[in-house]
Amino acid sequence: MTGTSFFSDMVQTITERGRKLLSFTPRTERMPSGLAGLEHLCNMLLSSRGEASGMALAAEILQQWSRLNDEEQRDFMLLLSGKFGPDSDKLDKAINTYRTERTAKAVLDLHQAAEPRRQELIRRLNLAPSGISTLVRMREKLLSLKADTPDLEAVDADFAHLFASWFNRGFLLLRPIDWSTSAHILEKIIHYEAVHEIGNWDELRRRLAPADRRCFAFFHPQLADDPLIFVEVALTKTIPATISDVLDETRAPIQAQDARTAVFYSISNCQVGLRGISFGNFLIKQVVEDLRRDLPKLDTFVTLSPVPGFAGWLARERRNEHSDVLTPEDQATLAALDDTGWTDDTATTSAVKTALMPAAAWYFLRGRTGDGRAIDPVARFHLGNGARLERINFLGDRSSRAMRQAHGLMVNYLYKLDDIETNHEAFAQRNEIVAAPLIKKLLRNDKTVRSTPPPAKANPKDTGHDKNKAGRKELSS
Amino acid sequence: MTGTSFFSDMVQTITERGRKLLSFTPRTERMPSGLAGLEHLCNMLLSSRGEASGMALAAEILQQWSRLNDEEQRDFMLLLSGKFGPDSDKLDKAINTYRTERTAKAVLDLHQAAEPRRQELIRRLNLAPSGISTLVRMREKLLSLKADTPDLEAVDADFAHLFASWFNRGFLLLRPIDWSTSAHILEKIIHYEAVHEIGNWDELRRRLAPADRRCFAFFHPQLADDPLIFVEVALTKTIPATISDVLDETRAPIQAQDARTAVFYSISNCQVGLRGISFGNFLIKQVVEDLRRDLPKLDTFVTLSPVPGFAGWLARERRNEHSDVLTPEDQATLAALDDTGWTDDTATTSAVKTALMPAAAWYFLRGRTGDGRAIDPVARFHLGNGARLERINFLGDRSSRAMRQAHGLMVNYLYKLDDIETNHEAFAQRNEIVAAPLIKKLLRNDKTVRSTPPPAKANPKDTGHDKNKAGRKELSS
Amino acid sequence: MTGTSFFSDMVQTITERGRKLLSFTPRTERMPSGLAGLEHLCNMLLSSRGEASGMALAAEILQQWSRLNDEEQRDFMLLLSGKFGPDSDKLDKAINTYRTERTAKAVLDLHQAAEPRRQELIRRLNLAPSGISTLVRMREKLLSLKADTPDLEAVDADFAHLFASWFNRGFLLLRPIDWSTSAHILEKIIHYEAVHEIGNWDELRRRLAPADRRCFAFFHPQLADDPLIFVEVALTKTIPATISDVLDETRAPIQAQDARTAVFYSISNCQVGLRGISFGNFLIKQVVEDLRRDLPKLDTFVTLSPVPGFAGWLARERRNEHSDVLTPEDQATLAALDDTGWTDDTATTSAVKTALMPAAAWYFLRGRTGDGRAIDPVARFHLGNGARLERINFLGDRSSRAMRQAHGLMVNYLYKLDDIETNHEAFAQRNEIVAAPLIKKLLRNDKTVRSTPPPAKANPKDTGHDKNKAGRKELSS
Amino acid sequence: MTGTSFFSDMVQTITERGRKLLSFTPRTERMPSGLAGLEHLCNMLLSSRGEASGMALAAEILQQWSRLNDEEQRDFMLLLSGKFGPDSDKLDKAINTYRTERTAKAVLDLHQAAEPRRQELIRRLNLAPSGISTLVRMREKLLSLKADTPDLEAVDADFAHLFASWFNRGFLLLRPIDWSTSAHILEKIIHYEAVHEIGNWDELRRRLAPADRRCFAFFHPQLADDPLIFVEVALTKTIPATISDVLDETRAPIQAQDARTAVFYSISNCQVGLRGISFGNFLIKQVVEDLRRDLPKLDTFVTLSPVPGFAGWLARERRNEHSDVLTPEDQATLAALDDTGWTDDTATTSAVKTALMPAAAWYFLRGRTGDGRAIDPVARFHLGNGARLERINFLGDRSSRAMRQAHGLMVNYLYKLDDIETNHEAFAQRNEIVAAPLIKKLLRNDKTVRSTPPPAKANPKDTGHDKNKAGRKELSS
Repeated sequence: MTGTSFFSDMVQTITERGRKLLSFTPRTERMPSGLAGLEHLCNMLLSSRGEASGMALAAEILQQWSRLNDEEQRDFMLLLSGKFGPDSDKLDKAINTYRTERTAKAVLDLHQAAEPRRQELIRRLNLAPSGISTLVRMREKLLSLKADTPDLEAVDADFAHLFASWFNRGFLLLRPIDWSTSAHILEKIIHYEAVHEIGNWDELRRRLAPADRRCFAFFHPQLADDPLIFVEVALTKTIPATISDVLDETRAPIQAQDARTAVFYSISNCQVGLRGISFGNFLIKQVVEDLRRDLPKLDTFVTLSPVPGFAGWLARERRNEHSDVLTPEDQATLAALDDTGWTDDTATTSAVKTALMPAAAWYFLRGRTGDGRAIDPVARFHLGNGARLERINFLGDRSSRAMRQAHGLMVNYLYKLDDIETNHEAFAQRNEIVAAPLIKKLLRNDKTVRSTPPPAKANPKDTGHDKNKAGRKELSS
Repeated sequence: MTGTSFFSDMVQTITERGRKLLSFTPRTERMPSGLAGLEHLCNMLLSSRGEASGMALAAEILQQWSRLNDEEQRDFMLLLSGKFGPDSDKLDKAINTYRTERTAKAVLDLHQAAEPRRQELIRRLNLAPSGISTLVRMREKLLSLKADTPDLEAVDADFAHLFASWFNRGFLLLRPIDWSTSAHILEKIIHYEAVHEIGNWDELRRRLAPADRRCFAFFHPQLADDPLIFVEVALTKTIPATISDVLDETRAPIQAQDARTAVFYSISNCQVGLRGISFGNFLIKQVVEDLRRDLPKLDTFVTLSPVPGFAGWLARERRNEHSDVLTPEDQATLAALDDTGWTDDTATTSAVKTALMPAAAWYFLRGRTGDGRAIDPVARFHLGNGARLERINFLGDRSSRAMRQAHGLMVNYLYKLDDIETNHEAFAQRNEIVAAPLIKKLLRNDKTVRSTPPPAKANPKDTGHDKNKAGRKELSS
Repeated sequence: MTGTSFFSDMVQTITERGRKLLSFTPRTERMPSGLAGLEHLCNMLLSSRGEASGMALAAEILQQWSRLNDEEQRDFMLLLSGKFGPDSDKLDKAINTYRTERTAKAVLDLHQAAEPRRQELIRRLNLAPSGISTLVRMREKLLSLKADTPDLEAVDADFAHLFASWFNRGFLLLRPIDWSTSAHILEKIIHYEAVHEIGNWDELRRRLAPADRRCFAFFHPQLADDPLIFVEVALTKTIPATISDVLDETRAPIQAQDARTAVFYSISNCQVGLRGISFGNFLIKQVVEDLRRDLPKLDTFVTLSPVPGFAGWLARERRNEHSDVLTPEDQATLAALDDTGWTDDTATTSAVKTALMPAAAWYFLRGRTGDGRAIDPVARFHLGNGARLERINFLGDRSSRAMRQAHGLMVNYLYKLDDIETNHEAFAQRNEIVAAPLIKKLLRNDKTVRSTPPPAKANPKDTGHDKNKAGRKELSS
Repeated sequence: MTGTSFFSDMVQTITERGRKLLSFTPRTERMPSGLAGLEHLCNMLLSSRGEASGMALAAEILQQWSRLNDEEQRDFMLLLSGKFGPDSDKLDKAINTYRTERTAKAVLDLHQAAEPRRQELIRRLNLAPSGISTLVRMREKLLSLKADTPDLEAVDADFAHLFASWFNRGFLLLRPIDWSTSAHILEKIIHYEAVHEIGNWDELRRRLAPADRRCFAFFHPQLADDPLIFVEVALTKTIPATISDVLDETRAPIQAQDARTAVFYSISNCQVGLRGISFGNFLIKQVVEDLRRDLPKLDTFVTLSPVPGFAGWLARERRNEHSDVLTPEDQATLAALDDTGWTDDTATTSAVKTALMPAAAWYFLRGRTGDGRAIDPVARFHLGNGARLERINFLGDRSSRAMRQAHGLMVNYLYKLDDIETNHEAFAQRNEIVAAPLIKKLLRNDKTVRSTPPPAKANPKDTGHDKNKAGRKELSS
């Protein structure tokens, strides 16, 4: 702790000294302004050897970048794409040598020649004080541009490559977050919570302070006060079917020792710029181990998770005259969903339930995207992680968001340590959905009998990042 | 702290669980033994997706590797070289695409296709509990093999590439080492000290506990109890000319506030396996800043450094009939050096001094290696760092080692923050040795008048690692 | 930290084991119920030698006490008073011996014989897990009873004697409170703030997070998460005249380095049960030293303090036909104060100011209580501490509370380290009010010319604890 | 941590400022020199009210005291005895009032009047920076003087009274000591070890670093780097009979999880000045609880303890013609003990054993001091603590010291948590020695049949402090 802040002080001082040196260069004369100036500085940084000026240059570049407007930041990214790729001459030469020699040396030279110059540039930018956090924000920007500018794909690949190395799981620290945690970090928990919003400090206290609540986050040593991902856990006696079972303000907390079940009811990624650098699977497994050690009576580890893709998929099936899932009667019944007050009437609710639950089972067990993957991003995350689909909970979450996304549906994924590997392999290799028998039974009134869908190439980095809220992402639960 | 150990516990548990899974595979049947078995495991690790089995596999591979004998470890390295390079077909295809298209995408694919598979392998090995420390030991082995086996150069390049990323300076923590430091770490200081040996705990105490002593080390979060590099500092009133000024047991310590000078009298790299991943320059500069902040009266920052290359060079000049440096009279006088007792006689000592000091000045200012670089490795380190050669101290160290390496010579390099960049540029770009005027004057009786030697391509990673002691390296001072 | 919690775990275990032992004693038979039972347990504790049963007994007694209702707690205190005084026979004997012998031994025995048995009882109760915090609450109760039950004075003297020893200033830790402090402690700051209320976490953040804010608290090792007293500090350029200068939400924070003045604008005692165990003076002086060290440009240390006794005193003078302070004209003018809207009218405000400011000066400089002490409790605290009265600020605080207590008046007390001892002596020994010349000048239209009031015996323990809010006390500022 | 050092800095500064104030007083004129000067300063401190001057005075007095020679320090103690007792007039008055009134107030006043003025003096001396450690050294001195100067008994009673309050067990922190502990503390462990000497750091490492070793110490917050008492623990499979079983350099450590037995083989008190302020009983019980929690398989907690009083007692019985214990044959056999080489001969050794073991059993079970207490101080400590005498080990320690003190005898005391209270009561109230049946059987050839000795008044503060080594004490084991 002391070390870190001491360290950043030092960096600060050295950088300032370097900046003074920089300023000896009368910029007006030599240094082009705007983006051309930035390009010049980047080239200087790449050719520099002195650490002081290197740190100063890095800091200067990152500061200038932070002050650019959206348009200019995009241009900067295009610059990285266009002018900081590999040196073509060197690369051509390396290719030629490789084609004649094919020695280990030739391969090495080829690999190095093919490395875009921006990789080294990004590495050197990381020398600046809190360089890493600016670089993470830079990639956040890049991700938002990538969709419209395919040329930036290669730039993003370089960021992702370096981040995967720097945020290597071996560097991450798991820390409990509780009511004795620093306010500085706690306010970030409020800010980053992406699944079930935390309105204020009193709500936060209810999530962290009671004896039957836990929270854990991964931190990176260079981002010491900024969590990367966190999970909120409720200790309960049985598996909860609704989020209000968990978050009800008036509930009576139980003693931690009396709990048999740990419920992961909210997992939030904190850094948009780290998308695709997956921590969630490690987080859950480590938290499971930690809880087991502290509370040996815990024997059930489940999530209580949203179903973000359900309402969209169901709408399509309701419009689909040839739906494999819904009969015309179902479609008629489910028309009730278009009235936001449908849950007010018991009979309607009951009818909807009868039609909706088998459809939900189909959605999970049979539904596939165009490229053959499970539709639900949260399902993909947890199943890919080795969990099994345990229970579908009708009206598990009556918040307007959940009603809109999933007609209130929530599900439990069960993490059983002994089955994790098997489940994971089944999903990853054979695209098989491991689910509790009761869920399969829901399919009994299956309209059609079809074979299991063909295996898809599951994407191991898929972490369910499809939607976006306030600059970051709900991961799952 | 808690986090870390908690974390490694977790990793331990997960790994053991994974190992159990591994053992389900009846090894006798499927798994080849010995090196073939290791190759098989490495391929499994590269194709694995599950984290639990991945961690278990990584741990298993590293453990098996640790149990190999020297011969087998060498074979394993050759395996990495021969079978874990890039996929040739993929690479050829990528080359062909690149030659037709030359898009950003094609470059990216080419770069990825050229990446040896062992890079990803090493990354995944890092998932094992304390994987990093085994990987560092693995590279230590590799370095010792490289000289005789040039094929391993490419393997080493991959290790070096990943280590440079993982040991990025941004991750390092500077921590003071003093008498309140953990014994666990202190015994490593005793072990790693490479310049002026620390014989026992009492000597260590004399280096750390007095009010006019300081010590600082860089640590990496994943190697929390194992320093990477450390520097020992003496606070003095004036620049010391001999090591006994600094280490004399009977000296009276001064108050830190009374010191004007900080003397870096010993810098030791601790991890042979991290050779070439340079920390020394950052260390010195940060320590300078730290000391200045705590003790504002300090105005002089110097080293008291050995001259490891001097005696060897001088022997050659003494044998050289056409020496540019030594006259025949000098050569006659310096014959006294062959008698180890030469310092016992005042007249001899005085005569030797007269002949030796100009030669020493020449050694530093004019001497060059075959490829045009400064001869002395410690000089290259400090000058490349931006220090200037401040003073040459006759008989600065009478230890048998220093007498053997340098006829007792020591030098001071001066770190003046305002000149560091200029000095560094002079050395790095123009191969110019920045030295105090008095040293240049020593050349007055210069035998020949010659121009400054031509610029050499200074190697920025040169950290003076030429000699080796007890498994690690004296860096400098 | 670890040590502490580990420790309390241990205590817990040992206590529970002891409690089991206790329960072997069939209580129904032997143990009287209610207060008689408690008395029995207290006598057991006093005669016990085993630590385990001692800790268990102590814990049992404190728990039983916590469950008593108000009436019973009062009876328990009377029990301590009536039955846990010294042993009369022993005391009489010791007196007789002393009267004949007068040796050191006889004095010692007399002193020990005169020690009430409840002192040892309280000491042993402190062995219970978190015994100290229950004992502090016990004294809080005692203080509230003392006024009506003079017999309890001696019991309170015993608590105070032991607390003075346990909360010896040498044991206290000064810790900065800032936005990185644990939420657990921060919520107590919100709760304990007694001078300028903190409404919620956002307000707290504004008090702690900006670069020009500081807060410090004293902690006791056995009450690690519960502050004893804290002070809030604003760093400013000049001495503020109103609390809104300091707390205005829209103000622009300054850089800490630009500040010349540190303003102590709120000091709150946290533990009612520690009344009379004075920490405030140490706190201010240490904070002054700390700030000076960190921010050497600070040269002025002042409070911005309420004047809690002013409105009450002025009301009496306004009714007093023979007031020494107010002329009939003044009294007429000040009638405006009875209308709560008097500040709305500029002319009225101006007239009031003219009459009120000299009265305020008189209040501070001449006003005395019946026993000759300065009237204002906050003034007594700061002047007794060695500060001087620096400035009287008209309408410094327009909050309804300040309008009610002091017609909006605030004052600055100046802490000048070099004068502290002199000022303190002047006040403590000669009852002299050290004040800035401008305040003395306000007395110009002094109705009467009178000599300085006679010296009173200032009470060094007087810390201004006269009013009470929500279970604790505004100390001052 | 930060808090503490910050704090002492503060105290330092305030004290220096205060000292400046003191120096304004031209000492040569007003202040008598030597002891008279100290007396004057003490009176000033008692009458002072300002904290700054109070701290300065306290620091000045403690410094002057530290510079006194032995004779002068003795005179200072006599001064405390003679001139800082209670105020006789006040005391007489309080006595008179009490004799007429007998109210609670009168008792309180009497108690306060009987309090020696030196108690308040000692309290105020504690305000000085690190006052407590000087006060502890002061009492160390006092203890050494007390034997010859009975007048100092009352002074010591005051120190002991205050220390008992300040070192209240509730303030103590139990911390593990291991190889990651600060060298600063570890060198104190080497220094304070009083039972089985630690010769150097390598030996220390063997005591702390192996997996089957533990060490725990109590610390006080104000003496943060100086342990009060520590215990060394070996984890073993069975109860060891000799110290070399435990300390043999060549033994193979076992895994902590494989241990069934925890052996307390050395307990050392560190601060002579705290004699009589008992921590040992708390230490052992808490360490037992801690070990049980970490290593649930541990089921046996024993000491391996010296028998310091045995050889002396046996010598007397050997000379005693009417010994109740030894027959003339025994006496003849035991004559062999006078030859230091007696253990070299197997036959002699065997004969000695036959005569010595029953005598040892008698020593423990029947032997009593003049005032009826168990003879062995270590036995008194552990039995008073609730342990039982488990086994007597012939030639358990062949070190010259153990041979001299106990003819090599060692014993095991067994701590069985469930029996501790019962055992303690048996010993404390009925003076009964709880011992294993086998030890009672050793008495079979009991010369005489006698009743259990009469109950003695066991001294609960008895901690076995009879011998002294290098300024501190072996407690036991």
